[in-house]
Amino acid sequence: MSTEPGDPASDAVAHVGRGRPARYTHEGLLELVVGVFNERGYDGATMEDLSRASGLTKSAFYHHFSGKEQLLRMAVDRALGALSAVLDGTVAGGGRAVDQLENAIRGTTEVLLAELPYVTLLLRVRGNTDVEREALARRRALDARLAALVQSAADSGQIRADIDPRLISRLLFGMVNSLTEWYRPGGTASRREIVEAVAQLAVDGLTTRATDRRVPFTRGE
Amino acid sequence: MSTEPGDPASDAVAHVGRGRPARYTHEGLLELVVGVFNERGYDGATMEDLSRASGLTKSAFYHHFSGKEQLLRMAVDRALGALSAVLDGTVAGGGRAVDQLENAIRGTTEVLLAELPYVTLLLRVRGNTDVEREALARRRALDARLAALVQSAADSGQIRADIDPRLISRLLFGMVNSLTEWYRPGGTASRREIVEAVAQLAVDGLTTRATDRRVPFTRGE
Repeated sequence: MSTEPGDPASDAVAHVGRGRPARYTHEGLLELVVGVFNERGYDGATMEDLSRASGLTKSAFYHHFSGKEQLLRMAVDRALGALSAVLDGTVAGGGRAVDQLENAIRGTTEVLLAELPYVTLLLRVRGNTDVEREALARRRALDARLAALVQSAADSGQIRADIDPRLISRLLFGMVNSLTEWYRPGGTASRREIVEAVAQLAVDGLTTRATDRRVPFTRGE
Repeated sequence: MSTEPGDPASDAVAHVGRGRPARYTHEGLLELVVGVFNERGYDGATMEDLSRASGLTKSAFYHHFSGKEQLLRMAVDRALGALSAVLDGTVAGGGRAVDQLENAIRGTTEVLLAELPYVTLLLRVRGNTDVEREALARRRALDARLAALVQSAADSGQIRADIDPRLISRLLFGMVNSLTEWYRPGGTASRREIVEAVAQLAVDGLTTRATDRRVPFTRGE
């Protein structure tokens, strides 16, 4: 399916109130739908809610999308695709496990911020339908790949060995995922600042950098 | 209101199917209700769902609780009360800001694990009714107190100054709150192990402890 902004085959024109007609691409329409899913919950939102929010007639809406399941699949595919690509790139890049882990943390955080509504929806999927269960299974597979990265960094002695790597993985990516609870584009913290903060806190914790640096400089003098 | 297990005034007897009647204390009934709220969402759950889940007749249920609002208030009061008590105790204990912060992280994590369903419900409150808006306001006040602890540890140079303290606060307590997504009592990680892991990751990050310790021992030899 085309999502080219100018592609007439994927455009839909909505007449909302007395204002100018809104023109959607498939992508714009999907983003709007994902917003409704996140607001009312996937289970709670009806096709009628979705067509009403878009300003399209129900038949025009059905012309574009067969139903909620198709919309959910498209939305979570987008999130899962972006997250998988980060991990594929990280692993293909090679290097020390701890550096791959740090890259995965950065990349995952970047995807979350850039694809916020899609990842938010993915994280809220609960598994009541086939599409949801499939999304959950794919999410679990990604979590397992992230946990394997933590495990191999621990096995190589590159990160602390006193905490179960599975627990580390849950906590670190729990911190990343918690961004969906408060991050809004245009807020006081920029995306870049957030990615840096997450990576630094994960790797160094709250440790005072100035103190760390002082150690090698003051010793031996 | 009494929640003494043996207090006849707070007990309710439910006849479910052909089994033995279930006897609830107010506390037991509240826990069951919170489970239904967490499963269906506060907005989605009706008083009928709640009485059905308890096995009580609707009139017996209303004899105990006036409505959903009262139940939500009792549930979030319990979570907010426990979280406030942790902060009060931490601040009353005095000491360095960074130690108070670590105590607050440990105490908050302990409360979350011990009061899992209540804190889960609190974290999902969205603000559609007065009771929800009041809960949100109290939650924001707690978040502000935690952020102030991070700020004063940063002001005293006890934690890193290269990340905005507000961002640190959001990320650290986002990590803590993310436990509600996966922690289930009786799982592989014990509560104590999780509290320790959260505190260590927050303070030291992924840093290899063995390497840290090696520095003072190998230098100067």
